[in-house]
Amino acid sequence: MKIIEPTLIVNKNQVIENVSKIQKKATKSNVRFRPHFKTHQSAEIGNWFKELGVNCITVSSVRMAECFTKAGWKDITIAFPVNILEIEKINELAKSVQLNLLVESVETAKNLEEELKYSVKVWINIDTGYHRDGIEWNKIHKIIQIASLIHNARNMQLTGILTHAGHSYKARTRTEILVIHENTINKMDQLREKLKLEGYNDLQISVGDTPTVSIADDFSQVDEIRPGNFVFYDLKQVQIGSCSEEEIAIRLACPVIAKYDERNEILVDGGAIHLSKDFIVDGSGRTIYGYISQSMDKGFSKVKDAYVSTISQEHGTIKANNQDFFQNVNIGDIVYIIPIHACLTTNLMAKLKTLSGKEIQATCK
Amino acid sequence: MKIIEPTLIVNKNQVIENVSKIQKKATKSNVRFRPHFKTHQSAEIGNWFKELGVNCITVSSVRMAECFTKAGWKDITIAFPVNILEIEKINELAKSVQLNLLVESVETAKNLEEELKYSVKVWINIDTGYHRDGIEWNKIHKIIQIASLIHNARNMQLTGILTHAGHSYKARTRTEILVIHENTINKMDQLREKLKLEGYNDLQISVGDTPTVSIADDFSQVDEIRPGNFVFYDLKQVQIGSCSEEEIAIRLACPVIAKYDERNEILVDGGAIHLSKDFIVDGSGRTIYGYISQSMDKGFSKVKDAYVSTISQEHGTIKANNQDFFQNVNIGDIVYIIPIHACLTTNLMAKLKTLSGKEIQATCK
Repeated sequence: MKIIEPTLIVNKNQVIENVSKIQKKATKSNVRFRPHFKTHQSAEIGNWFKELGVNCITVSSVRMAECFTKAGWKDITIAFPVNILEIEKINELAKSVQLNLLVESVETAKNLEEELKYSVKVWINIDTGYHRDGIEWNKIHKIIQIASLIHNARNMQLTGILTHAGHSYKARTRTEILVIHENTINKMDQLREKLKLEGYNDLQISVGDTPTVSIADDFSQVDEIRPGNFVFYDLKQVQIGSCSEEEIAIRLACPVIAKYDERNEILVDGGAIHLSKDFIVDGSGRTIYGYISQSMDKGFSKVKDAYVSTISQEHGTIKANNQDFFQNVNIGDIVYIIPIHACLTTNLMAKLKTLSGKEIQATCK
Repeated sequence: MKIIEPTLIVNKNQVIENVSKIQKKATKSNVRFRPHFKTHQSAEIGNWFKELGVNCITVSSVRMAECFTKAGWKDITIAFPVNILEIEKINELAKSVQLNLLVESVETAKNLEEELKYSVKVWINIDTGYHRDGIEWNKIHKIIQIASLIHNARNMQLTGILTHAGHSYKARTRTEILVIHENTINKMDQLREKLKLEGYNDLQISVGDTPTVSIADDFSQVDEIRPGNFVFYDLKQVQIGSCSEEEIAIRLACPVIAKYDERNEILVDGGAIHLSKDFIVDGSGRTIYGYISQSMDKGFSKVKDAYVSTISQEHGTIKANNQDFFQNVNIGDIVYIIPIHACLTTNLMAKLKTLSGKEIQATCK
């Protein structure tokens, strides 16, 4: 494969391995596997899931739901609280697919009751500790009020309670992740019991961020898991403890533009418009925008003592204290950056290439 | 204008004002005004410059040079050191427009001598303190070696020395910016004198990051300025001291999705895939992903005590300690986020709307 500009490479075998691993866990716990497609945003990569038997998905916007409806998916959850301004598009979708929506306010529940023309399934969006979105899990009065509005609506079928335990991204050990997992499930289970006492029977529970789904094994208390990032994984997930570096399925191939002997730095064509500006801080307090693989042939293994140290719109700087690597790399070579955040990198790049050079459109834009 | 999803709004009058201000400075100092188009990446906004009399531009990639060649521009500098892997595309461009390239290594100079089929102008890329790219300004031996290679090449016309004083982005006062400006020009001027002694006469000097060009008034010692961000400006530039908040010409319009009374937070549809993850740290140590304007009608003025405090892929959280604002905002309203980094936001959004609702394609992707 001839690479002349920043190119996002995907290792299909690794993707299949990552997906199969989580799918097996779901099967073992007898829960629905509804992967989040925001990470790859690709109809073609969606087909890789379909071939493994996946038949329902999660997305994070109406736009993405439209894209995957076109790609033939028939059961789609938009895991972003309903934006009532998009009601026309929502009605269009609800006409043709099994659409599942998130509601977390009285206003939106009432608006949907007025405006929905077709039947949808509705999950109440619950905050179990992330404090980004959702109703706090113990605000039972408000939750019951919304449950009642949905229950009595013509076109809404109250399906269950859903949460995204995004605070798992602050974890740094398996134990921390497992504690969050257990805590999340306990809260959701308590809430379901309380709703049962109010007469809301058979409510389902949906959870499933990548860290907890990667580390925990038992999901038997819930009905559905919705991880997304695990399809590719990234350095953020390695830092959290969700995966190993070997499990990361993508690399940004970047041409080497210049070398600076006086400071052991390599300039590559590859910057914030390719990788995003997401970073991790390593154990030595260094800001890291990516690690490096020197070739695709060696299983993409990581170069020691080398990292992307600064980034601007199109420029990336690799600090290469590893002299073997630094001396070996020449202007015109390609190096492979292991991304910090797979979702943002894929969204920016908009397309990927497989190891055999086949181009895959990656975004639903 | 009906807004139902994250929409990037541009105030054309403010753009014209921003461009005219810098253009007048260039005219006064009798220097060439070669604006950098990486910020807007838009053929249509390019035309606004053209109508003001601009006839030469800067871009940051071969891809962008191709885009603006199609849009009718005839004199284009690619302000990114030549990536020799893109030689075929470079030759295509050099065939049809006045192409100006940056060279900073012996390897690339030799490669270009072998591979170039058409004549191009070449600038030697100089590092005057930013330490991202370019040859350090006082490495005179290396600079002369490269000058000689270019001078003796068939298809390269040695035009001058060019620098990007990106370390001006670390400045926080007008005085700091002016010191960097003076320092940069002194170094470039000394280098030009040294090259003159070696027989390289009539070499030009090109400078021009947004901070120094916005604050300094005298450019008479240089031949060309190449600012980019000033077309829109952003909160980063306000922090540096390059502009006032009123001069920022873009806003990201975002639907309000939910409100959290217990923590004075507002959830909007608008996240890292719209704004990027760039941030500033304010005087109180808070990480700020954007400030807020409540309406377009009031001249986009900033809401006090409210800011985007966290951001994920599609979610933005506004911390609104301003109770008047918090109580006044309702689910389904639109709020306007003032971006931290105009270039990355525009690159992500890929299109803008004028205040009158006209859609403008914004990227050359």
